[in-house]
Amino acid sequence: MSDTPHPELDVRARELDRAHVFHSWSAQALLDPPVLAGGLGSTVWDHAGNRWLDFSSQLVNVNIGHQHPAVVKAIHEQADLLTTVAPSTAALVRGEAARRITAHAPSGFSKVFFTNGGADANENAIRMARLHTGRDKVLSTYRSYHGNTGAAIVATGDWRRIPNEYAYGHAHFFGPYPYRSEFWSDSPEQEAERALRHLERVIQSEGPAGIAAILLETVPGTAGILVPPPGYLAGVRALADRYDIVLILDEVMAGFGRTGRWFAFDGYDVVPDLITFAKGVNSGYVPVGGVILSDDIAADFDETVFPGGLTYSGHPLAMASIVGSIDAMEAEGIVENAHRIGVDAIGPGLRDLESRHPLIGEVRGEGVFWAIELVSDRASRAPLSAGAMGQIKKGLFTRGLLPFVQDNRIHVVPPCVVTADEVGRALSIYDDVLAVAERG
Amino acid sequence: MSDTPHPELDVRARELDRAHVFHSWSAQALLDPPVLAGGLGSTVWDHAGNRWLDFSSQLVNVNIGHQHPAVVKAIHEQADLLTTVAPSTAALVRGEAARRITAHAPSGFSKVFFTNGGADANENAIRMARLHTGRDKVLSTYRSYHGNTGAAIVATGDWRRIPNEYAYGHAHFFGPYPYRSEFWSDSPEQEAERALRHLERVIQSEGPAGIAAILLETVPGTAGILVPPPGYLAGVRALADRYDIVLILDEVMAGFGRTGRWFAFDGYDVVPDLITFAKGVNSGYVPVGGVILSDDIAADFDETVFPGGLTYSGHPLAMASIVGSIDAMEAEGIVENAHRIGVDAIGPGLRDLESRHPLIGEVRGEGVFWAIELVSDRASRAPLSAGAMGQIKKGLFTRGLLPFVQDNRIHVVPPCVVTADEVGRALSIYDDVLAVAERG
Ligand SMILES: Cc1ncc(COP(=O)(O)O)c(C=O)c1O
Ligand SMILES: Cc1ncc(COP(=O)(O)O)c(C=O)c1O
Repeated sequence: MSDTPHPELDVRARELDRAHVFHSWSAQALLDPPVLAGGLGSTVWDHAGNRWLDFSSQLVNVNIGHQHPAVVKAIHEQADLLTTVAPSTAALVRGEAARRITAHAPSGFSKVFFTNGGADANENAIRMARLHTGRDKVLSTYRSYHGNTGAAIVATGDWRRIPNEYAYGHAHFFGPYPYRSEFWSDSPEQEAERALRHLERVIQSEGPAGIAAILLETVPGTAGILVPPPGYLAGVRALADRYDIVLILDEVMAGFGRTGRWFAFDGYDVVPDLITFAKGVNSGYVPVGGVILSDDIAADFDETVFPGGLTYSGHPLAMASIVGSIDAMEAEGIVENAHRIGVDAIGPGLRDLESRHPLIGEVRGEGVFWAIELVSDRASRAPLSAGAMGQIKKGLFTRGLLPFVQDNRIHVVPPCVVTADEVGRALSIYDDVLAVAERG
Repeated sequence: MSDTPHPELDVRARELDRAHVFHSWSAQALLDPPVLAGGLGSTVWDHAGNRWLDFSSQLVNVNIGHQHPAVVKAIHEQADLLTTVAPSTAALVRGEAARRITAHAPSGFSKVFFTNGGADANENAIRMARLHTGRDKVLSTYRSYHGNTGAAIVATGDWRRIPNEYAYGHAHFFGPYPYRSEFWSDSPEQEAERALRHLERVIQSEGPAGIAAILLETVPGTAGILVPPPGYLAGVRALADRYDIVLILDEVMAGFGRTGRWFAFDGYDVVPDLITFAKGVNSGYVPVGGVILSDDIAADFDETVFPGGLTYSGHPLAMASIVGSIDAMEAEGIVENAHRIGVDAIGPGLRDLESRHPLIGEVRGEGVFWAIELVSDRASRAPLSAGAMGQIKKGLFTRGLLPFVQDNRIHVVPPCVVTADEVGRALSIYDDVLAVAERG
């Protein structure tokens, strides 16, 4: 593991990276990526033995923590049996994975279609909704991210959509965001009410008879961990019912423990028609994602061919990691830990920081899914500049914390196994760095 | 392994599958999927201990054979270090994988963008071509498959495109297919010439100034292993140059040994601008794919953000399986084996079958990438009926061969490690089953 330091491997990793690796969402020449070599629980390290508290969970996917022995063991065991098999076969481990996933879904969700990640999960959910309704349009929010493939990236609302608008049938609306309301609201309740009214007006204006799906992140993640205000999701469900629209909840980031619940929507009065997942289902130990289908939609494809598929649908190694991960999360109360840590440690800790740091405009979240929104001015809520955010990111990293920094926010998103002690250490690092930024 | 028979696990696998697994490209109620539990080299087995020669390589991905010990070992070792890491980090194993891939690419290809599979490899190659040219349209052939996501499925030419046409900027043309020419040609040379003329007419008619890319499977795979006639690919390259169009070669199925070469295009007088890969790069032991970029296109994104990405880009476990697989393929001469087996065993064997079975209209291929095209009448070349093909598929399976059957064809696509003895056994099974079909 990290016992013997090998700093020369960090140099080698960086050299090879700069020579041969083309990175996501980046200008390649401007990158200076940190080297990571190993990890355990909420800690990661490089080859030299430098250690960081991982309060990013990488891309908010390592819910069970790094190198959980039960998941590693499940991968080892399946690797010795059969790593890969065609999706047209029946594989025991695939059935076992699907059974465990559906066991945590609401009743009336029996089947899982497996994909390789979150993007193709959303692609296939959109496909199902269109075929189920015979309609084309998909409504989703401007503040959202749904993946980088053809339909997923155009369903995405944020800037990443703009250079990629090659799919049709997508329209966008504004979701609720009490701290930066689009609706001039002055309470979360009013925000929910007005956001619903806005959504209904968009539905009416786009033409309900042409709308296949409303696709929502249950708790928009990359966009800012925008916990939905009371009544909003139930209201969306009611609108979907009123206009016969399929409701797809994207639980790729919010699902499998992140919010302190198995599914984020378990905390709201809503049941979707299709659920998409990835990340937390196996903490990304092997690439995987999927769609959980309501029986009603699944039945459409009993006698009719479902026109979607991929080589690695239900990949045995990925399936084994799901089985290992869900079993360990159940046995060790990992989802409950995420809930408790949110209530007892992260929430109170962030509110304490908020009370002492004028740079903090708002903190919000639940479980291990929190955002600190930084502002240059509390009254106007003007976002902190990119330059200042860059300094903060660097400061956190230098002090031994691997942060998730997005726009003017720090997302506090450690693994679900994080301990109160680790949260304490992280909070004091955030504290220090904010103090430095406020002095600067 | 397969020592102790556990037929009850086959029953359990089937039950769980029917209850909880939603399958690719299928009507769910009409499926009766075979259970697979393990494999080694070119053989797979179920829990009861029944064994099959895998002449499908699953979905034509298991190039190195099942459970190659070096790849399994690489997965074990990486699983003990770090299974998953964000794409924004530098990971030694990712650089090592990218270095090995580019070492087999033509000179002037230094960088690799990793994805989860073939579909998102094509999505990102299309994105790069559009941004490189500032143009929208992508030309691809009707006889092609490029994946199931937004742009990939609309770039696809076959029927799977039709229910999924939600992306714009795609136009299709006919590629060469001497046995079923669209161009009334009477020799492979004439077919190439006329297919090129057709492509140029489509380019002119679609408007060259709007065309970003020509996307081609070097050897169209699922569409029938349509080995390009002499001069065709060089001619496409010349057209791409003439009209400043990016040439993307999809090597997802044809690459990494399948044709008896590292890349299928190594056998033709052509160098593309972007290469997409998946399957054979690691034989699918862990889901992965990617794009190899020419330095010219890579340079576009030195100072400008590349607007594409995904959580598992450059996933360590996938990277380790690439390193293990490429090293073993080099050390054991596995690509050379595929070449030799094609020349010495599969080619002569299939031509022998062709000489004796009137059901065979044509055999074609190279390496371990062959098609037997079945016809009800050699003169008219009328494809054998779906019913008869179903019987043949069943017959092959019953006799211990896992076949790849597509439309009116049997694709003879064993792992690259297949032995002459295994090919001999497979040939005699094909022989038997064809004889039965001819009597029936
Ligand atoms: C909510 C949400 N949906 C979909 C995706 C896309 O998942 P992937 O990167 O695995 O394609 C992400 C990734 O961050 C996400 O956060
Ligand atoms: C030539 C080709 N391109 C792309 C794909 C899509 O790959 P994947 O199924 O991994 O998305 C395939 C799959 O069969 C293929 O054969």
